[in-house]
Amino acid sequence: MTDEMLKRLATELEKADDITVLTHAHPDGDTVGAGFGLVYYLRGMGKRANVKNSEDFPQKFSYLFKDYADMDFEEKCVISADIADVTLLGDGLSGYADRIDICIDHHKSNRMPAKKSFVDGECCAVSLIIYELIRFMGGSITPLIADCLYTGIATDTGCFMFENTSPEAHRAAADLIGFGAGAAFINREMFQVKSRGRILAEQEIIGSMRFEFGGQMAIITVTNSQIERFGFERSELDGFAGIPVSVEGVRIGVTLKQQAEDPGVFKASIRTVDTDASAIAARLGGGGHNRAAGCTVAGTAEEAAEKVIEAARASL
Amino acid sequence: MTDEMLKRLATELEKADDITVLTHAHPDGDTVGAGFGLVYYLRGMGKRANVKNSEDFPQKFSYLFKDYADMDFEEKCVISADIADVTLLGDGLSGYADRIDICIDHHKSNRMPAKKSFVDGECCAVSLIIYELIRFMGGSITPLIADCLYTGIATDTGCFMFENTSPEAHRAAADLIGFGAGAAFINREMFQVKSRGRILAEQEIIGSMRFEFGGQMAIITVTNSQIERFGFERSELDGFAGIPVSVEGVRIGVTLKQQAEDPGVFKASIRTVDTDASAIAARLGGGGHNRAAGCTVAGTAEEAAEKVIEAARASL
Repeated sequence: MTDEMLKRLATELEKADDITVLTHAHPDGDTVGAGFGLVYYLRGMGKRANVKNSEDFPQKFSYLFKDYADMDFEEKCVISADIADVTLLGDGLSGYADRIDICIDHHKSNRMPAKKSFVDGECCAVSLIIYELIRFMGGSITPLIADCLYTGIATDTGCFMFENTSPEAHRAAADLIGFGAGAAFINREMFQVKSRGRILAEQEIIGSMRFEFGGQMAIITVTNSQIERFGFERSELDGFAGIPVSVEGVRIGVTLKQQAEDPGVFKASIRTVDTDASAIAARLGGGGHNRAAGCTVAGTAEEAAEKVIEAARASL
Repeated sequence: MTDEMLKRLATELEKADDITVLTHAHPDGDTVGAGFGLVYYLRGMGKRANVKNSEDFPQKFSYLFKDYADMDFEEKCVISADIADVTLLGDGLSGYADRIDICIDHHKSNRMPAKKSFVDGECCAVSLIIYELIRFMGGSITPLIADCLYTGIATDTGCFMFENTSPEAHRAAADLIGFGAGAAFINREMFQVKSRGRILAEQEIIGSMRFEFGGQMAIITVTNSQIERFGFERSELDGFAGIPVSVEGVRIGVTLKQQAEDPGVFKASIRTVDTDASAIAARLGGGGHNRAAGCTVAGTAEEAAEKVIEAARASL
């Protein structure tokens, strides 16, 4: 984010108080890390601030909020962190759709209505924007804030593996480790540890991987019955998105996840090697980034696969 | 590495010429990256230098040497890069065992006989030492050298995921991307792309994972017949080492790989969460780092597994 944008954002935050920071539904490491990181920083400035999600935050991020408790205040400022669109607020926060004062995001497709928007579509993580902001404001970064921001940067860059990993992301990680981020613990929790159920499910799901366009596209499908049968957590599904695109020769990898609340709908996670993933997602009403995007597709697993294959055709 | 050590090493390199840089057998990204990176840097200083390995360098690193050709000279200085012991020279380079002038390494267990040794057991990669050295010497880092050193740092830290990842590793990565390292390409080649054969083999091998000590230890075995049957490359075996230790609750993960040249011997890769991997390896005559170590074990797959289970017992 440019210094000019950081300056304007800092000015907004300095005059704000009694703040609610919203995070997106089905929260990932970046929205959780940026949300809690910002709230801890604002509280450190002597302000009242809470972080909210449509549902409970997943337990896998509990190291970021084990001592967190909501403060009691009458909300005067609402900030959204890492939320590209009102639909991503989720049912629990949908009432905030027309009440957002400050939007902080890194999705170039952002269309969140807000009084003031601070969107850096080139930045790999909102947590990196929050890091830059705190440094710009001369604030101090506690080990807990460092854990939050490291979590967001690491998860949104696939542990510094994805194309979006900038030198700034590495420099921030270096600094955050210096400020006490428990990178080894976080990396293990976020990227390495898998339950036995998840590992066995992975076997079955990979075994039925479908290839299209002469092996240039690969699709895997995760059904509700598999999640039940292998007994793993829905929050463990994140890592599946990277599997199809990891096969040699594959340029577009898609992971279809049947939705728990609506088995007739699949969430498609699209990962690409050299084509614009957000363009494919956009053809199905979704959006995202160059190499990672998503959308929802209605139908049976077979029908959903056919739809994403058609959407991908123009990109190959 | 301390400035004092870097200064002594720089002095040695400045006066050296007609240099052979040795890399270790079954080369990994760090020995290849450090070896070629150092040779390209020395050549840039106007010196004659070659890099050698016991066998041909694996094709998966070909982006680092596609325009490389040996120079013709009478060798006057021999440097070993990332080689902890003479046995790791391999048959092809064993004649160098008593002729090493300068040893540059990051294995705290290093016992390489050399006229001058520069070992930093705290550094995550020899490629990071070479990076620090070039910066210390005020040398310039070409995009190709940046590719070499990024490859070494990224592979030895599991793409910045392992506990050995220091702030310095992240800062070096940031700088190397700035100097033109193709991080996205390298990460994909090193960490993401798997052949279909490898993916299918992984399924079968994970399915027969063995658990010991109430799930605190997990062991997988890769046999020569599996490699043949699934038709993947032996150089693709590196990634298997991280699989057993990724299971929830596992503290010691071991991957046993049957050796092509001697089916009665298994190479054990030991990865740990919170115990000293090198201590376990040492009980079987091997060595390595705190969280990643290795040894060779004779016997059938079953016998090899029993031996590593016994070696691990004292560490749990």
